[in-house]
Amino acid sequence: MKFELTILGSNSATPTSQRFPSCHVLNVREKLFMVDCGEGSQIQLRKFKLKFSRLNHIFISHLHGDHCLGLPGLVASFNLLGRTSDLHIFAHPELKTILHPVIEYFSHGLTFAIHYHDVDPKKHARIFEDKSMEVWSIPLNHRVPTCGYFFKEKPREKNIRKEMVEKYQLSIAEIVSIKAGSDLTLKDGTVIENKALTTESLPLPRSYAYISDTKFKPSIAPLIKGVDLLYHEATFMEDDEVRLSKTFHSSARQAAEVARMAEAKQLLIGHFSARYTSAEGHEKVAREIFPNTVAVSDGMRFSPGE
Amino acid sequence: MKFELTILGSNSATPTSQRFPSCHVLNVREKLFMVDCGEGSQIQLRKFKLKFSRLNHIFISHLHGDHCLGLPGLVASFNLLGRTSDLHIFAHPELKTILHPVIEYFSHGLTFAIHYHDVDPKKHARIFEDKSMEVWSIPLNHRVPTCGYFFKEKPREKNIRKEMVEKYQLSIAEIVSIKAGSDLTLKDGTVIENKALTTESLPLPRSYAYISDTKFKPSIAPLIKGVDLLYHEATFMEDDEVRLSKTFHSSARQAAEVARMAEAKQLLIGHFSARYTSAEGHEKVAREIFPNTVAVSDGMRFSPGE
Repeated sequence: MKFELTILGSNSATPTSQRFPSCHVLNVREKLFMVDCGEGSQIQLRKFKLKFSRLNHIFISHLHGDHCLGLPGLVASFNLLGRTSDLHIFAHPELKTILHPVIEYFSHGLTFAIHYHDVDPKKHARIFEDKSMEVWSIPLNHRVPTCGYFFKEKPREKNIRKEMVEKYQLSIAEIVSIKAGSDLTLKDGTVIENKALTTESLPLPRSYAYISDTKFKPSIAPLIKGVDLLYHEATFMEDDEVRLSKTFHSSARQAAEVARMAEAKQLLIGHFSARYTSAEGHEKVAREIFPNTVAVSDGMRFSPGE
Repeated sequence: MKFELTILGSNSATPTSQRFPSCHVLNVREKLFMVDCGEGSQIQLRKFKLKFSRLNHIFISHLHGDHCLGLPGLVASFNLLGRTSDLHIFAHPELKTILHPVIEYFSHGLTFAIHYHDVDPKKHARIFEDKSMEVWSIPLNHRVPTCGYFFKEKPREKNIRKEMVEKYQLSIAEIVSIKAGSDLTLKDGTVIENKALTTESLPLPRSYAYISDTKFKPSIAPLIKGVDLLYHEATFMEDDEVRLSKTFHSSARQAAEVARMAEAKQLLIGHFSARYTSAEGHEKVAREIFPNTVAVSDGMRFSPGE
């Protein structure tokens, strides 16, 4: 049961020859969820062998070019390849206004439907769910309306202990109820707690938060408490107050502070300013506060709980 | 005196991990001229170390996404880097209508001027000239209005033979006139031909033609007669008449026929369909007709006359 994140782009605004602009892809049991879609994301999908046909959901954090200008080309390729499945794009309502005319022009006669789901970046809300997962918006603080996204697997049905089925002569109805988490009440009124009857399905539900461009915002932490995989932007290595407040970005230390407060299991930092030739400095600074930090580069993959 | 072509993208519609969509850059004496600007062209500029600041002119052959969707991101990066020089974009008038709103949205508060120069793809016309070069449009035959571009260096002033200055006691005015190509008439009426008085400036004027997406069109040949470097699309390896007439593309053999008819010095073929894993077949087919053919890949450089 896959839950694997691939980094397709890890640079800030202007790409370099080594780092593409922002794009992550989360594979949840062979369904791909793209988060941000910077220019060239379709090239990176090919390079890292992620199948176009498995990608039906794209989440855009905000309308800066380095986070969404890969959409028209990606959709044009979908169209050329004869895609038929619906595509769902979650974004600020202006994305549709500004990019759909381009998408339509360059994908003349779309062979599939695009559904735009308006996201209010000021709200912390569940914006998507399916059988196995839900996605929440996380309001951020950037120069334009911006939100992060929090992907959480739903708890799976528990496994019932075989010996308990026998011991209490459980009916089908009782088994269904216990698997869903109920306790068992015997005829004599004794209550057998659920945890004595079941074991957790493994792997335990996993989670991933994508904290896109933002000023340091400690109020994020409680919204993503205990997250397995926290990506947090760390544009700057230094805590240069002037630069941070002018650009509405975070430093490596600030990303680590959020990870520590959120009790994340692992921190991934990225969106490095093109002024740095390496992200080693960012990683070093962040690790002083949050040791389990990785400065990501394009092509890295992460599978929490494995 | 540089005249060097760099291939930034050599694939057709859908990029692969090895080949970006269409983009060429011609360096003429350290001025860069971009021809087509597929998605990711700014990444390729970085990769192949071509300076953003030297690029002031972009020529777009037609409005298919794989030939122009790199523009909004490139302009956004120019803007972030604080560019001040004017940018000139030569294209079908619809480019401005469809892409400028996106460019404006993602490059809020442009730090430089963009001049759109309308090109009528049905006309064979000189659309640009400066001191050293001119650019002509070459009408093509594709599914949407399309033209190629022909870049020609202007002839340089001739070198006067020093011994002739002495022999005929040439005045400054006579020298200027002879350098521009005139013959010399002596007082007794004798005419001394220019070629006896001068030598050609080397290198001789060089030329490059970019024949973008098109059906086989032999009438191109006389317009680019004697071209040093002819790029001609060769989407398909085979002469599959159904496919060629449906897609309005050319085969490797057809590209070679045009090169032969135009008496080109060298043929470059590209824009290979993603259905081929290699372009060796295209090259082999084309070389049977036009031996000096190269199937290009991203990053290749060509300098005619060197």
